[in-house]
Amino acid sequence: MYNPKVGDKLESLDTPSMIVDLDIMEENIRKLFSLLQRKGVNIRPHLKTTKSPILAKKLIAAGAKGGCVAKLSEAEVMCAEGVDDILITCEIVGPTKVARLVELFRKYPNIQTVIDSEVGASAIDDALRTSGIETPIQVLIDLDVSLHRTGVAPEDALALAKHIATLPHLKLIGVQGYEGHLQHVHGREEREKECRASMAILTSTATMLRENGFDIQVVTTGGTGTAEFCATTPGITEVQPGSFIFMDSDYRNAVGSYFSHSLTILSTVISKSAKERRVTIDAGLKTLTTDSGFAEPMDMPGVTYVPMGDEHGWLCWEDGGRDVAVGERVQIIPSHIDPTVNLHDFYYAYRKGVVEEIWPVATRGMVQ
Amino acid sequence: MYNPKVGDKLESLDTPSMIVDLDIMEENIRKLFSLLQRKGVNIRPHLKTTKSPILAKKLIAAGAKGGCVAKLSEAEVMCAEGVDDILITCEIVGPTKVARLVELFRKYPNIQTVIDSEVGASAIDDALRTSGIETPIQVLIDLDVSLHRTGVAPEDALALAKHIATLPHLKLIGVQGYEGHLQHVHGREEREKECRASMAILTSTATMLRENGFDIQVVTTGGTGTAEFCATTPGITEVQPGSFIFMDSDYRNAVGSYFSHSLTILSTVISKSAKERRVTIDAGLKTLTTDSGFAEPMDMPGVTYVPMGDEHGWLCWEDGGRDVAVGERVQIIPSHIDPTVNLHDFYYAYRKGVVEEIWPVATRGMVQ
Repeated sequence: MYNPKVGDKLESLDTPSMIVDLDIMEENIRKLFSLLQRKGVNIRPHLKTTKSPILAKKLIAAGAKGGCVAKLSEAEVMCAEGVDDILITCEIVGPTKVARLVELFRKYPNIQTVIDSEVGASAIDDALRTSGIETPIQVLIDLDVSLHRTGVAPEDALALAKHIATLPHLKLIGVQGYEGHLQHVHGREEREKECRASMAILTSTATMLRENGFDIQVVTTGGTGTAEFCATTPGITEVQPGSFIFMDSDYRNAVGSYFSHSLTILSTVISKSAKERRVTIDAGLKTLTTDSGFAEPMDMPGVTYVPMGDEHGWLCWEDGGRDVAVGERVQIIPSHIDPTVNLHDFYYAYRKGVVEEIWPVATRGMVQ
Repeated sequence: MYNPKVGDKLESLDTPSMIVDLDIMEENIRKLFSLLQRKGVNIRPHLKTTKSPILAKKLIAAGAKGGCVAKLSEAEVMCAEGVDDILITCEIVGPTKVARLVELFRKYPNIQTVIDSEVGASAIDDALRTSGIETPIQVLIDLDVSLHRTGVAPEDALALAKHIATLPHLKLIGVQGYEGHLQHVHGREEREKECRASMAILTSTATMLRENGFDIQVVTTGGTGTAEFCATTPGITEVQPGSFIFMDSDYRNAVGSYFSHSLTILSTVISKSAKERRVTIDAGLKTLTTDSGFAEPMDMPGVTYVPMGDEHGWLCWEDGGRDVAVGERVQIIPSHIDPTVNLHDFYYAYRKGVVEEIWPVATRGMVQ
């Protein structure tokens, strides 16, 4: 029976395995909090990256104010594990999901959710009225700050706020606006410029709502690529970075190496062509995602990774690159960290070659 | 507590959910077996598609001879659930994995595995010698029939067979050659022509090995796109189709609609722009894969799906297309079925709108 455990050496892990260098991860956390805390904003890390209550608690210990999750099913797991200061950043729509929200809110009154339509707001209010719960749920208006994915248009925000004000079971506490399309803009200046424009939409809408009598306490936004700019924008109260803890090649290519790659996939060379400058490793589409480009071998200059189906990938090297033997183990840097983590059941966190902690990916697959 | 169960109506399922139309799935199984059984080959479906011992047993009941899995960890689950006539189609490399293989083989002596290197063969033989197990494990030589992913080159097959013959704990029973690169060749004639060329490599190598005194009983190959051609190639004894049971848009675009889409993702419209011809649904990269193109909405002509991050996707429609409201539910056809199934924990199998069976995706995430 394969049963990896704390104290095992890295070389005894079967492959592919998702491994985390604790020294690097802890340094990423230190850097993020020292960079942003002095700006005076709350840091509510997006837990869609780590999918782990254990890691959420490490972030809270480092200074985070709770966390964000994308989906209600993630919130259910986080709350049950004691992480209940949670903002759900996606709209909750449909009677089944609204019923789940009500049940979660009954037990965990600190949860917050976002709203971008009158029909969505009314459905939650209706369900809460019939539930008999007396305290209102805290909601934020989700504003489209130019990602065009979810969120009400700025010119429609006041009407939505007025509608929410008519619903006794909702309490409007703030505004969320996520500039997801700017996270990977290459070039710091260009990224900052575009981010400031999105932040202007968000903060001016918050101001307009306050001027209309709404008590907007929370203005929340930002990811790993923009949190620094968001945090220095007057009027922003909270930022939501997530990927900084592990990083990936897509973020590194856009924002540089201030944060370092702490998470890699440990893989084994399982086949080798005698004639070609390539080998086949045991990591394919089920191990590494391709939506943001291909993953890349760590510390192997001139070697590229190409997925070859669900369970295989090529390592191809240029002339003069180092040859690799069947049985050799390599580390691969994911191209997009969140969906890569979503493929795996466990993290093997190590320090100096020894497994120090094993964390379940507790909210893996929680798409509802 | 959300607790979907048999007898529920489809409209009560939360979204996103992976749903299977049983009438269509059963028709796909009937078609596959009636098409291939009369060719006289064994049908050993690749269980990397369904990842479910329950579905493996349905296939065996329909006439399958056991099943294939890609990885050892999948074999462990299948065997424990009573599906122990299993061929592992990927090379087993590395001491940790070889030790797992030995433990599995000790309990399930019917398992077969593939070999494409002398070092790989010797490692398994060594481990079996020290295990005290006396019967040899059945192995197949994995041959590169031009996919160039794994497999020994045809000209090196004899040397590998002779090496295996020196290893008392391995018993060579056959040859595997998978033409994965031909599964999605568009145009039946072109696909058949290229498949016949790959099959010639496979069957001539099997003949050559027999002429050199090796007892090659099994010659195994083929996928959903080629199994029909493989099955009518003299010398092929076994085919390994998998995707036919559910299908996907990539296969349909290549091989047509002989098999129909039985699996879709049920999703909800969660946000809508008043100004644009698009809505946002709750299915993104964590729900639908993109490696083989984007998924597509079912029965919505003129509407396309575009992923918008881990948890969101756009439905975009042309002028004149039907408008869609917040809260409406849609079905999405995956572009690549195997890794899509790998994202989900359960199948909800329905007939005429009612959930009839719920199957865990038991080998989801089994990449080792």
